Amino acid sequence: MKILLIGASGTIGSKVSVELEKRHEVVKAGRNSGDINIDISDISTIKKAFGELKDLDACICCAGDVAWAELSELSEEDFYVGIKSKLMGQINLVRIGQKFLKDNGSFTLTTGILAEDPVKTSAVASMVNGGIHSFVLAAAQELQRGLRINAVSAGVVEDAYEKYASFFPGHTPVSMSKVGSAYCKSVEGIINGQIIRVY
Amino acid sequence: MKILLIGASGTIGSKVSVELEKRHEVVKAGRNSGDINIDISDISTIKKAFGELKDLDACICCAGDVAWAELSELSEEDFYVGIKSKLMGQINLVRIGQKFLKDNGSFTLTTGILAEDPVKTSAVASMVNGGIHSFVLAAAQELQRGLRINAVSAGVVEDAYEKYASFFPGHTPVSMSKVGSAYCKSVEGIINGQIIRVY
Repeated sequence: MKILLIGASGTIGSKVSVELEKRHEVVKAGRNSGDINIDISDISTIKKAFGELKDLDACICCAGDVAWAELSELSEEDFYVGIKSKLMGQINLVRIGQKFLKDNGSFTLTTGILAEDPVKTSAVASMVNGGIHSFVLAAAQELQRGLRINAVSAGVVEDAYEKYASFFPGHTPVSMSKVGSAYCKSVEGIINGQIIRVY
Repeated sequence: MKILLIGASGTIGSKVSVELEKRHEVVKAGRNSGDINIDISDISTIKKAFGELKDLDACICCAGDVAWAELSELSEEDFYVGIKSKLMGQINLVRIGQKFLKDNGSFTLTTGILAEDPVKTSAVASMVNGGIHSFVLAAAQELQRGLRINAVSAGVVEDAYEKYASFFPGHTPVSMSKVGSAYCKSVEGIINGQIIRVY
């Protein structure tokens, strides 16, 4: 398969990349790195990439920013950081990409445990993740030409645990290999409309 | 209690109003009707209302617009119709209202079955409802002074069934009295962080 992987240099994306490159051609995308530049919060870069890349079987997104602050401190602008990037950035990938992916291709989006198991300061992340979950359920039923869509929702991952442990008290870090497998399950399997929970 | 009810003249809001007025003082808000004008997509009207209304025990929102179209036709702007109104409109009510509600007050937001059980053309509505669900889970844990928050997620309601039946094939309409009770449960009970499903 030919797979577009956005956020390929990130904590999760780099592991997904290593796993999928064993069997597939992976086009790595990043804001400022990789084979092609995509900033999911900038729709023009999404349109440009899909216009240039031909014969894509799959699009994986491991990118997306959100703002972190206590509910009492969150501004409207803080919510729009997440809306413009992780929420609408990923939705725009599907909106635009549905016209370009090959028949029976797939989208794999990234959410996270905070959709269902929030922590202090996660209101924006939780909202964005929950929005993507329901979008995935809806889009899975409307995509045409055999296209599929799933989301991978991981807990705090091993490789980021040291950095984030204090934000996730009592959370058990999940192994990078399990997270990598979840993306493979979506791309290489036949599932559609699933939230693949890794926690 | 003194309860601010936004969307008081709508299909659901008007029933909620009748039920709560039996026992409480209900301040009815609407874009162009009611005791006070609030358009949840216009943050200035939210700020003005909370500044003027004193001693509120509860804020209920039964308002919020979304766009409806097939996934292949949905524009980015269509998503922002829902984001600016039903999603961020309701979140802004909480963001701003948390500083004004009386101790132990409550927010009750409105979502809907499409968060979990989408239909054709519901991608925006599904996304918005799912985002609010996760926001409610997160906000419930961070609200201070004993404030609570819940969402009522109803199926297609009896009083709108004739209009929407063709969009909800096989869905069973839910009784207006059950929907009204769900709002009472949130406002008059002690629950917090719940998605009250009425379907």
